[in-house]
Amino acid sequence: MSVLAAEIETRPLLRPFLAAQAQFAAGSDSPRAFLERCLQACDAWEPKIGAFVNVNVAGARAAADASTQRWRDGRPLSAIDGMPLGIKDIIETIDMPTENGSPLYVGWRSDRDAASVVALREAGAVILAKTVTTEFAAREPRGTRNPWDLSRTPGGSSSGSAAAVATGMVSAALGTQVLGSTIRPASFCGCYGFKPTLGALNRGGSHDNLSQSCTGMLAADLGDAWQVAREIAVRAGGDPGYPGLNGPDQAPPPHQPQRLAALETPGWRVAEPGARQHMAETIARLTAAGVEVLTRAGNDKVAAADEAIADANSISGRINDWEGRWPLNTYRDRDVGKLSTPARERLARAEAMNLDDYRALIHQRDSIRQAYAALAAHCDGCITLSAPGPAPLGLASTGDASFAVSASLLGVPAISLPLFRLDGLPLGLQVMGFAHGDAAAFAAAAWIERTLS
Amino acid sequence: MSVLAAEIETRPLLRPFLAAQAQFAAGSDSPRAFLERCLQACDAWEPKIGAFVNVNVAGARAAADASTQRWRDGRPLSAIDGMPLGIKDIIETIDMPTENGSPLYVGWRSDRDAASVVALREAGAVILAKTVTTEFAAREPRGTRNPWDLSRTPGGSSSGSAAAVATGMVSAALGTQVLGSTIRPASFCGCYGFKPTLGALNRGGSHDNLSQSCTGMLAADLGDAWQVAREIAVRAGGDPGYPGLNGPDQAPPPHQPQRLAALETPGWRVAEPGARQHMAETIARLTAAGVEVLTRAGNDKVAAADEAIADANSISGRINDWEGRWPLNTYRDRDVGKLSTPARERLARAEAMNLDDYRALIHQRDSIRQAYAALAAHCDGCITLSAPGPAPLGLASTGDASFAVSASLLGVPAISLPLFRLDGLPLGLQVMGFAHGDAAAFAAAAWIERTLS
Repeated sequence: MSVLAAEIETRPLLRPFLAAQAQFAAGSDSPRAFLERCLQACDAWEPKIGAFVNVNVAGARAAADASTQRWRDGRPLSAIDGMPLGIKDIIETIDMPTENGSPLYVGWRSDRDAASVVALREAGAVILAKTVTTEFAAREPRGTRNPWDLSRTPGGSSSGSAAAVATGMVSAALGTQVLGSTIRPASFCGCYGFKPTLGALNRGGSHDNLSQSCTGMLAADLGDAWQVAREIAVRAGGDPGYPGLNGPDQAPPPHQPQRLAALETPGWRVAEPGARQHMAETIARLTAAGVEVLTRAGNDKVAAADEAIADANSISGRINDWEGRWPLNTYRDRDVGKLSTPARERLARAEAMNLDDYRALIHQRDSIRQAYAALAAHCDGCITLSAPGPAPLGLASTGDASFAVSASLLGVPAISLPLFRLDGLPLGLQVMGFAHGDAAAFAAAAWIERTLS
Repeated sequence: MSVLAAEIETRPLLRPFLAAQAQFAAGSDSPRAFLERCLQACDAWEPKIGAFVNVNVAGARAAADASTQRWRDGRPLSAIDGMPLGIKDIIETIDMPTENGSPLYVGWRSDRDAASVVALREAGAVILAKTVTTEFAAREPRGTRNPWDLSRTPGGSSSGSAAAVATGMVSAALGTQVLGSTIRPASFCGCYGFKPTLGALNRGGSHDNLSQSCTGMLAADLGDAWQVAREIAVRAGGDPGYPGLNGPDQAPPPHQPQRLAALETPGWRVAEPGARQHMAETIARLTAAGVEVLTRAGNDKVAAADEAIADANSISGRINDWEGRWPLNTYRDRDVGKLSTPARERLARAEAMNLDDYRALIHQRDSIRQAYAALAAHCDGCITLSAPGPAPLGLASTGDASFAVSASLLGVPAISLPLFRLDGLPLGLQVMGFAHGDAAAFAAAAWIERTLS
């Protein structure tokens, strides 16, 4: 075994792609060679962590060879030409089944690519695998293990995407988030997570038909995360009727925020002491670096925003319940035995609701969004933890989403930076922005990362 | 051949369902007997007009029998329990393929019901058939003929739904509308059409992923149209994030509007003289009945609204182009030979656009919606024609959508009333309301119908 392979096996290692580009152009590296390193990581890690549902190695090698030729010819299709990617298994791919984490969809093929996947292929990306999702991107886990500790959850619902990125099996992967499904697994697995503004990326062909849901990126660094999102947005746009991801063609450079709000979110009351300590130190360090950090205790506006999102968990949950009535009801008619108990319970809750209940909830959500938006006049963005602590033990639950759910309810951009360690396990700092201010949130996150690293 | 059958064969005959209910409860009629009359009409008409793609007679009879028993037991599931329905073939059904009017989807089964179809079955409706749609609910017709004149188009894209309702093969059918796909075929086939406020009915499992698109009803009378929409809304809600159809559990009773605006829309310049004459007479009769009818010539606000929607055709077309890039691009990758020439051209136009073009269009659409919404302070609704004239000759085109497109662009409710005849062919009067004012538009339409009939 080579030294490299030995290291790959011993600890998770992110594999940024954009950083390798200079070598592609120079000819000292190539997308094909890059892919082969990913495949080495797959050999080492996949049997242990189970991040993939289906893999198309031959297709990926052919795509990587074509990309290699384009780089040699000086005609790459985009900055992510040749980037090995994983696709969450609720997002359709023409060359691999889309199984939705459900026995109802084993081997199911849509015979088409989702809008985001078409865009990524047009940009030259190398689609390597479909990544494990919980059942219908909800709660029921499907066995992926956390590469930092195989006895722990990788988080969910984008479980496989986060675990695959964390181990360098791919440089980035598509996830989705309706509660905490991108930010939470990014935090637990120690990679970067980016959940854009609501509607920023076209969900055509993605089976997450919920009003808070959003296509998200798990990535090996901030630049890779931005670039993947951007290459989708310029080719596929946002959801129909939405303006799509705002921002520049390359990742926004680091920019020091003047003022940040430190939010408690519903997560704070369940945060572990060590996680709270990290947050306190972060506030101190940012303050020392010249950022004014507004806190709930010292600022009415921050307190008001935190109060507004206090029920984010239950409001989001009930909105999802109603909106998820279909297709669970038709799946029940088809074969109730293939729905998990949590899915059946969710359906029962939905059927106990009526349209007026739902209207009250989305009205309440609108009010909360307005209350949070008012913060934009007072600060450049918000910081909070990405999770209450490191990944918990066990594979039966994907962990607590209380820190991540607010950005989902609010429809605002959120970024998880893998900055902390607790008991040797990763934990993320979350940067939240304002609607359509994805680029500003990125610039702030990049500055925070550089300053705190 | 019975007298009834002979009559069925000679002219199209609507078959309202709610009107038959008293007989179901009394036992002098039954949903099964009602369905058999529909099937007689199918025998007479379907070979001539080709409204259906797939039919499930056995399933419909079983559903009708179960409904018959519920009515006998005094326990109908809803007011539409037993109503025979057609479902536009872009909307998924668990018991029949969903072929999208495309050779790419021949025989394709999703193995699930769309959200609207689950709701209809829960309400006891009898799903008889999938109805012919143009290719992907766009322009390319698929052969359905107008029952009033087999050499004419039934309109589109909900071609089969309108023709099936017009001939009494079903009482109502689901359509969709993104330009004129419900209002136009209703006008051409002489049935009622209802395109609700944008987002009012859940499109889950309907393959019309466009920001202006909406599930619509083709129906044998106004009451049936409302009831079908309402039964969907209370069980499946609207599109995720939308409040769903507003209004009462039964069709709003006729209510005389005080003031109506007569809009020209982009259609007026292509309207036939006879159609213009019908409109002029309608304005005169409504005025005589005590309604103040505001016209463009006499009222600045009406003129401003009409100016605002003057480019509705081209703006809507370009919005649809961009939003339709996917899935056409992945279908091209799969088998370009199975896309029609218009579909390929649409894709080429989409690929010549960029995200900024699209943003400008939806910004423009927002402004137009605001300009139209300002009319609500001055009138109770708008009237215009449903089409520039009766169905044109030929099956190669589905006709002009210029009168119907405004309500689609605006996202407001529109109703087509089969009030006019021109050269012995039907033509509709269109009643347009304001966003979420579906019930008010219905009440006005019902009063107009009663007053003008």
